Amino acid sequence: MKEVHIRVARREDCPRILELIHELAVFEKAPDEVTVTLAEMEDCGFGDRAIWQSLVAEVDGKIEGIALHYDRYSTWKGRRLYLEDLIVTEKLRGSGIGKRLLDELMAYAKEQKYNGMVWQVLDWNQPAINFYKKYNAKFEDEWVNVSVEF
Amino acid sequence: MKEVHIRVARREDCPRILELIHELAVFEKAPDEVTVTLAEMEDCGFGDRAIWQSLVAEVDGKIEGIALHYDRYSTWKGRRLYLEDLIVTEKLRGSGIGKRLLDELMAYAKEQKYNGMVWQVLDWNQPAINFYKKYNAKFEDEWVNVSVEF
Repeated sequence: MKEVHIRVARREDCPRILELIHELAVFEKAPDEVTVTLAEMEDCGFGDRAIWQSLVAEVDGKIEGIALHYDRYSTWKGRRLYLEDLIVTEKLRGSGIGKRLLDELMAYAKEQKYNGMVWQVLDWNQPAINFYKKYNAKFEDEWVNVSVEF
Repeated sequence: MKEVHIRVARREDCPRILELIHELAVFEKAPDEVTVTLAEMEDCGFGDRAIWQSLVAEVDGKIEGIALHYDRYSTWKGRRLYLEDLIVTEKLRGSGIGKRLLDELMAYAKEQKYNGMVWQVLDWNQPAINFYKKYNAKFEDEWVNVSVEF
């Protein structure tokens, strides 16, 4: 394994982060669903009304994984750290990079006094489900995602 | 039907909003899951790092419904308005208050140039599912909610 360096994402990382998002969309069988532009992504991460932040995993200076997150508000639990995407490039999966990213994000969330973290997983993605079980994660499958496009 | 007035929530509305959240938790068969305090709720809506906003429906001056929302970032779609809770007090359900709240929130979202709205519904809550179908909502049931408590 080459050296892996985890750090906070910067604006100039956005093109590579978007490449990894496209790669994940192909894996999730929905490549045409990625319609966000690089400009909007940059604005939502580093503009006036920024929402998202991310950790990135560099391998020999190239970003090969991300843990992109933002705050959510649960009316039951309060402020929660939401993990929008945990991505490791396909050729490096199974090498421990995802675990490094998730461990560091959890350490950050605890340090920042979040009382918990939430995310979603596809019900057929058994490797990911098995991975999350190691964190004593709770799974709830009775919720349906609803969306309306304007 | 008495007069219904929709407006943006203010800090002093929080105690009544939290009552409605408790009422919904009972309906969703999870009354003990509401652990957020009023102070945290107020801070997350009106403090330095505020997340949520809400519309409230007043009936004869009393808040009987809410549409609580905040911004999310979809790595596929960009900035999205997320509807965390749409609640109408039980005795007034079916009276059109939920529709008034959702219509006004959608109008707001369009005016603010969001490209879409997202939310979740319980898979056994058929009245809610039928209601959302009228908005041409798209339903995705292959996602599982995952959470870790610290």
